[in-house]
Amino acid sequence: MARSLRTIDIDELSRHNREDDCWIAVESEVYDITDYMPSHPGGPAIILKNAGKDATATYNEIHVPETIKETLAPGKLVGLLDQAEVVNLPEDQKSDIDQVEEKTNRTMSKDVYAKPELHKIISSKDFEDVAEKTLTPKGWAFYSSAATDLVTLGNNASFYRRIMLRPRVMRDVRKADLTCSILGCHSSAPFFVSPAAMARLAHKDGEVALARGCASEGIIQCISSNAAFPLQSIVEGGVTNQSFFFQLYVNAEREKTTQLLQKARDLGVRAIFVTVDAHVPGKREADERLAADNTMASAISGAKASNDKKGGGMGRLMGQYLDQTLSWHDIPWLKEASRLPIVIKGIQCAADAKKAMEYDCQGILVSNHGGRSLDTAPPSILTLLELHAICPEVFDRMEVLVDGGLTRGSDMLKALALGAKAVGVGRPFLYSLTYGQEGVEHLSQIFKDELETSMRLCGIPDLTQVSPAMVNTRDVDHLVPREEGHPWIKWTPKANL
Amino acid sequence: MARSLRTIDIDELSRHNREDDCWIAVESEVYDITDYMPSHPGGPAIILKNAGKDATATYNEIHVPETIKETLAPGKLVGLLDQAEVVNLPEDQKSDIDQVEEKTNRTMSKDVYAKPELHKIISSKDFEDVAEKTLTPKGWAFYSSAATDLVTLGNNASFYRRIMLRPRVMRDVRKADLTCSILGCHSSAPFFVSPAAMARLAHKDGEVALARGCASEGIIQCISSNAAFPLQSIVEGGVTNQSFFFQLYVNAEREKTTQLLQKARDLGVRAIFVTVDAHVPGKREADERLAADNTMASAISGAKASNDKKGGGMGRLMGQYLDQTLSWHDIPWLKEASRLPIVIKGIQCAADAKKAMEYDCQGILVSNHGGRSLDTAPPSILTLLELHAICPEVFDRMEVLVDGGLTRGSDMLKALALGAKAVGVGRPFLYSLTYGQEGVEHLSQIFKDELETSMRLCGIPDLTQVSPAMVNTRDVDHLVPREEGHPWIKWTPKANL
Amino acid sequence: MARSLRTIDIDELSRHNREDDCWIAVESEVYDITDYMPSHPGGPAIILKNAGKDATATYNEIHVPETIKETLAPGKLVGLLDQAEVVNLPEDQKSDIDQVEEKTNRTMSKDVYAKPELHKIISSKDFEDVAEKTLTPKGWAFYSSAATDLVTLGNNASFYRRIMLRPRVMRDVRKADLTCSILGCHSSAPFFVSPAAMARLAHKDGEVALARGCASEGIIQCISSNAAFPLQSIVEGGVTNQSFFFQLYVNAEREKTTQLLQKARDLGVRAIFVTVDAHVPGKREADERLAADNTMASAISGAKASNDKKGGGMGRLMGQYLDQTLSWHDIPWLKEASRLPIVIKGIQCAADAKKAMEYDCQGILVSNHGGRSLDTAPPSILTLLELHAICPEVFDRMEVLVDGGLTRGSDMLKALALGAKAVGVGRPFLYSLTYGQEGVEHLSQIFKDELETSMRLCGIPDLTQVSPAMVNTRDVDHLVPREEGHPWIKWTPKANL
Amino acid sequence: MARSLRTIDIDELSRHNREDDCWIAVESEVYDITDYMPSHPGGPAIILKNAGKDATATYNEIHVPETIKETLAPGKLVGLLDQAEVVNLPEDQKSDIDQVEEKTNRTMSKDVYAKPELHKIISSKDFEDVAEKTLTPKGWAFYSSAATDLVTLGNNASFYRRIMLRPRVMRDVRKADLTCSILGCHSSAPFFVSPAAMARLAHKDGEVALARGCASEGIIQCISSNAAFPLQSIVEGGVTNQSFFFQLYVNAEREKTTQLLQKARDLGVRAIFVTVDAHVPGKREADERLAADNTMASAISGAKASNDKKGGGMGRLMGQYLDQTLSWHDIPWLKEASRLPIVIKGIQCAADAKKAMEYDCQGILVSNHGGRSLDTAPPSILTLLELHAICPEVFDRMEVLVDGGLTRGSDMLKALALGAKAVGVGRPFLYSLTYGQEGVEHLSQIFKDELETSMRLCGIPDLTQVSPAMVNTRDVDHLVPREEGHPWIKWTPKANL
Repeated sequence: MARSLRTIDIDELSRHNREDDCWIAVESEVYDITDYMPSHPGGPAIILKNAGKDATATYNEIHVPETIKETLAPGKLVGLLDQAEVVNLPEDQKSDIDQVEEKTNRTMSKDVYAKPELHKIISSKDFEDVAEKTLTPKGWAFYSSAATDLVTLGNNASFYRRIMLRPRVMRDVRKADLTCSILGCHSSAPFFVSPAAMARLAHKDGEVALARGCASEGIIQCISSNAAFPLQSIVEGGVTNQSFFFQLYVNAEREKTTQLLQKARDLGVRAIFVTVDAHVPGKREADERLAADNTMASAISGAKASNDKKGGGMGRLMGQYLDQTLSWHDIPWLKEASRLPIVIKGIQCAADAKKAMEYDCQGILVSNHGGRSLDTAPPSILTLLELHAICPEVFDRMEVLVDGGLTRGSDMLKALALGAKAVGVGRPFLYSLTYGQEGVEHLSQIFKDELETSMRLCGIPDLTQVSPAMVNTRDVDHLVPREEGHPWIKWTPKANL
Repeated sequence: MARSLRTIDIDELSRHNREDDCWIAVESEVYDITDYMPSHPGGPAIILKNAGKDATATYNEIHVPETIKETLAPGKLVGLLDQAEVVNLPEDQKSDIDQVEEKTNRTMSKDVYAKPELHKIISSKDFEDVAEKTLTPKGWAFYSSAATDLVTLGNNASFYRRIMLRPRVMRDVRKADLTCSILGCHSSAPFFVSPAAMARLAHKDGEVALARGCASEGIIQCISSNAAFPLQSIVEGGVTNQSFFFQLYVNAEREKTTQLLQKARDLGVRAIFVTVDAHVPGKREADERLAADNTMASAISGAKASNDKKGGGMGRLMGQYLDQTLSWHDIPWLKEASRLPIVIKGIQCAADAKKAMEYDCQGILVSNHGGRSLDTAPPSILTLLELHAICPEVFDRMEVLVDGGLTRGSDMLKALALGAKAVGVGRPFLYSLTYGQEGVEHLSQIFKDELETSMRLCGIPDLTQVSPAMVNTRDVDHLVPREEGHPWIKWTPKANL
Repeated sequence: MARSLRTIDIDELSRHNREDDCWIAVESEVYDITDYMPSHPGGPAIILKNAGKDATATYNEIHVPETIKETLAPGKLVGLLDQAEVVNLPEDQKSDIDQVEEKTNRTMSKDVYAKPELHKIISSKDFEDVAEKTLTPKGWAFYSSAATDLVTLGNNASFYRRIMLRPRVMRDVRKADLTCSILGCHSSAPFFVSPAAMARLAHKDGEVALARGCASEGIIQCISSNAAFPLQSIVEGGVTNQSFFFQLYVNAEREKTTQLLQKARDLGVRAIFVTVDAHVPGKREADERLAADNTMASAISGAKASNDKKGGGMGRLMGQYLDQTLSWHDIPWLKEASRLPIVIKGIQCAADAKKAMEYDCQGILVSNHGGRSLDTAPPSILTLLELHAICPEVFDRMEVLVDGGLTRGSDMLKALALGAKAVGVGRPFLYSLTYGQEGVEHLSQIFKDELETSMRLCGIPDLTQVSPAMVNTRDVDHLVPREEGHPWIKWTPKANL
Repeated sequence: MARSLRTIDIDELSRHNREDDCWIAVESEVYDITDYMPSHPGGPAIILKNAGKDATATYNEIHVPETIKETLAPGKLVGLLDQAEVVNLPEDQKSDIDQVEEKTNRTMSKDVYAKPELHKIISSKDFEDVAEKTLTPKGWAFYSSAATDLVTLGNNASFYRRIMLRPRVMRDVRKADLTCSILGCHSSAPFFVSPAAMARLAHKDGEVALARGCASEGIIQCISSNAAFPLQSIVEGGVTNQSFFFQLYVNAEREKTTQLLQKARDLGVRAIFVTVDAHVPGKREADERLAADNTMASAISGAKASNDKKGGGMGRLMGQYLDQTLSWHDIPWLKEASRLPIVIKGIQCAADAKKAMEYDCQGILVSNHGGRSLDTAPPSILTLLELHAICPEVFDRMEVLVDGGLTRGSDMLKALALGAKAVGVGRPFLYSLTYGQEGVEHLSQIFKDELETSMRLCGIPDLTQVSPAMVNTRDVDHLVPREEGHPWIKWTPKANL
């Protein structure tokens, strides 16, 4: 294809640098991106900032090369950049991906951080430590950040520490069977990879490496709407008949969502996780802070930049195309469009769990978006307790999943004992990805070993045996009401209009 | 006027340095301040310390030039200081205002603190950090200090972290309407600038910059009795018909208060906030500690300086003219004198909230003076819970406002959910003032964005929808009794005499 | 007297260095201390360690010169030490008193700690900081140490922070009257100096300086049995008719106690505080640790030093003469011997408070010996709450006093609100003594100012107005039972034999 | 015996380095260990790693020389290593034991850690500090480590701090009698040495020094199945008729356990403590981490090393021979095989305590293996409270013992007050062993002194007087249910198969 294209030099490229005439170059190919710009999920500003330039470095941080070809109409490829003029970028203009690779290859050098060999990693926390040291500042900020004062982030984890396990002794535990079924899919263990965006920031193979690791471990990956790779590449990167879930952000342009759901179904995806707790982007200050250091040079319009108090971190940029009007009335449309099981991701109270049940959803994912949406929202394990206390019927009618704050097999056992069918793990798998597919497998094995040990020490041979009697939640029970007909169930705000 | 005045040299000035014959020079004008001295709100000692001297530097820290002219009878201007003798002050005699300006102008230099550009400030806490580094020690001590062991200061903030928001999902939140009415005045958001004294310590335009920022943001400023600028200058510094509230310290000389209230009404002020929790100055040690370093050189009388154990911080000095006999029986006089809505500022328990209701006040400001008055007083959000539990009727009969410890939009939403009509923000706006009017606007916009995000993530389209069901206060509920007729309501100490 | 005595040289002195023939020199006078040694309150070991030596330095740390003359029979003065042979001691053999004085005199030097001028001390904590820096290691260890893990020491203070004051506003508080009566004695404020041993470690005038400070401030001093000065010197060091209390350790030799009580009554002491919580010395590790560094060179007997696991800190040494059989049956004897009001010092539970009431004691001092006796004993303010809940009648029948952990006027107001007639303050007054009498007065004035401010901000004109409704104790209420006939009241261990 | 053996040189030895032909040399004697290898309690991998080598250093870390002779059939000694070829090991190949001795002998040198003289050690914590500084990294990791996040480790200790003692005063406490009977054996104090493996890591005389220290102190040692010395050497290392308990790990090969129990009985052991909370090794990360640094060079089989995610710390290795099918039905066999009192070690809930009672066990040791098995298991003192609340009858039918987290005499008194017959102390005695037998005695004396002091200050003359009324547990009471028939009692997981 490249054969028949004409050569464009830097001068020509640089003249197409306006909102109404915008070219960019990616991997030596020059595209006319004028028409596409307004509907860019990351917003038009970031494109305009690169208008008339070679945008390869910036582009590769977020996307893989095939994405731009998939996204734009073929006629938008207008030529090839004159290679004589492509020069090596100075260090500070290199993409994050390049930087990550260089860092992690330098483990032999004495005066830089020596990334430990994989067999020395023995816990989820070890992977986090490596990630903190090897990711680029932007990557680390994006993954590790959470809303404002990090109260929910901290509580997500600390509440697992406040809940005690109650070991039972003298039980035959020669076997500890971790297998289970999640939304009709077999899994070798009761945990899955929670959706997380832009896995390329951790490893160049991003979500594809995650898929391969999940395949070899027999666990399920829930793919993010904002994955760095196209959905198809990820699904096909795994093995035949591998089970995947797909996380959905509903687009303000509903038709796009319909198309996406059909594509997901066609690719064999097994369930749709509709994210409902991030229709407004949370304020993740570590992420925002890096963005604030790179002021946008050119404003899109002459209008006052009223947006700039809201920050421009990656989390915000990615949230710009979200449909803020999504409501319970849209569930039938989602079911119709996908013909797949629907899981509501982001349930944070009993009243909404009941709503999901009333709308015949197949499942809910109790989640506060890893503490990234609304700070001081309840830790997810506390919400699980609330469902038990106020609307226990939801556990019979839907599969209840939970994520947020789990870093140990013992954390998982607590969630399962309190009724979760399985648990999602997000950040830890992203951090494990700093070692690629092997890291993902290693973390999965660590979790399986920890969970198995916990089950055996609790006298539980398999997951059908879990019970609330296995956990002492009394340190946090006072935070949940027990009364029938509590106002928390009865009250509902009135909608807009 | 200056034309006809005779020139006075330093020698002559220096001879009028006694309690019964006291001149001072301010901005080259020499005043006879003998008669005025005893009624100086800041106490006579600070004047006597400057008797017979050029007091410009000290004066400007607290006041603007017009204040002295407004305050003294015209005949008290006795001459002009001989300019030949006015020399540049050494560094340590420069006023705090001068020092602030120099510090904040040196942002280009590499070896001093580089004040961040405003667009990099993304939270209230960021402003505080800047203030700590750019204010003079005296200014920082005065603003940031609180009573003795800082228990209430800390609890004011931490109790907001202990209360959880309960997000509701799948609600149409395309709009989030922040507008509301406070004491009959329209506001673009449910927060106002709480009164704080001596804003010149943060910026030379002090309260006037605050007024202009509030005008452009459409929010209300409550002006302190101890403002650096005369009330009129502040009100006229804003825009036509701008809404202001006025905070009142009742003067032991009641007539002065009557005059002040009439002036406020004449200037169009919309409500009077009577401070009742600081008739005795709290012990703010950071403030006192700086004062203790500058021992008064000359005692006023030969009597034992019995006062010196009580400290001489700015907070104490400003409190010397306060009427310590103020009681509920004075409410009718205040209403009569002002013919404006009366809000009692400093309510800290249910019993006193009921008192205010019984005396037909239009509102109360639940407040512990930012933790500056009595340490270990309850955090203000806990007092709000107490009103709910013991005397919920007050919310129907008065507007209940609250301040103290709010640094986030999510904090505001919690206070509103618990019945507050609006919230006051004090220190953060003073800290934002280190950037002048623009800083004030920037902070207001940050708060609006945070509040809007919090409302949307809670599924609330406008402020009429708030409800106690939005918050989980169970972590602190045990600190408040639920019983009818609790001793906390029934008990009242007997008055003096 | 010294005239007629013969001169003894170092050689002769050094030959009397055995348990059965023991001389020591103090201030150039040589005493035969053989007979006295076994009954030395501090134990015989410390004397034997100095046998045949000039013990002036060691002696002066604990005692004033007149004590030895008062204690020994006149014939025990055997001669005068040959002055030619008395040499200046090397630095490390100087007494602690010498070292304290040198340190605190060096405030002008730039390279040593500059003790702040007194007017810059604005809180009890400031005095503590000075004491930590100016006392000798031994003095600081003795004063500041507490039992084992310091749990009670910490809780004594932190529980005051957990109890909230409830300010009442709009009350006429032009006056705040601190005067009260304690055990029939007038006091200018509701606090007194709790007994603490060996005040010479802080200042050479020790308890006499305390007495003079109390006199000028109109407050009451409770003198320790282990004072560095003889009781008479202290009482006579004050003013005529000054009120003193006397703290009593009952001696295993009861007759000595009888004599001491008679002496106290003869000197005009107004009440006896019988210490009952330290008949076994607590394990104060900071104190023990210093002692462990100075191993005793000569064992007293050939027997195995089984005692050395129990440590040899000053606290332990002073405890060796205590009567461990003291019981309630001894109260009549104490009353008879003293003919003074009896206060039981060290009550730590409701059951024992009732006992004291049943034995018609005039008062109790709720105290855990400043956290120095049994670690994890309840903080004293919690014990006060327990009395309220389980045996409120004791407040009507006895004066209930409390000490331990009070460092603020607001702490005092809380204790008073919960029923204490007055509060004792120990360590802070010792720390203030680093400035001598003036320091004691300064601290008293700070406390009065803080208490006055707290009263005014709570709307209380005088101490008759205090009420439990002024405090919110709900954060700690769950630690106290409310039930009638609780096992804590009913259970009593059986006595020995 | 050595006389008649042939000399083997290094070359010959090194050829026997395979799983099916494996020789090792220990202390110059060469053994054929091929047949024994699969049943090695520490697993075959560690032997294979030393195959064909002089394994003396590695062997001595864990075992004493006689163990290998006791264990192997006599014919397995195949020759003597040629002494000419035995060279001094480089520093990093020296055994841990050698390193410990060198370190602790260097106390005179100025530039290394100066181990304090024993008389300066005044608390259990002091011993811990010395151990941390003088043990080898491996020894310190093995002793101090606990499961995953150390939550239970921390709670074991902190819950003792949260429980308050309630001193009673004015009781005759001239005597404080610590003697008691534990499982029919007299003890001078209500504490015993809890079993802990591999005491040679602290001192070359290991468990024998512990035995001698216990003998001279009159307390009981519970010997670990994994002791460094053979059981017989330990028992015979003490005094005639000394009381010992024996801790048992049930071997997957039951016959071996039967033989061991008979041996124990023959040696005069007085009771068997069957460990039931560590049939699956806990994940002790400090221990694992050191192991992960020493990757096994040769894998045992060609199979995937699926085990390596489970770590290879000493704790794991020692756990490889454990019987994971052990259940309540095996109790009769254990009684029959031992004909000794059976104590179930590792009870962590009321339901299992009742089980032990139903199976007529003589006692239970409430324990969570020092926080080393399952993290977030309840602290052991909380489990004791649970027994009180849910099944108080167990205290009448069995002796209830408790260990975990006790470091003070006051901790002991609390456990006794809550019904424990005696308490076990593990790590502190291992740490005291850094001073050998004398250290053990010193620690025992410290504990006795602390306990005696605590008893006296609580007014208790002997241990028959203890009562729950002596402790205030209300800070943790909410963590335990009070209801009859609570699910915690009723629920039991179903067994495997």
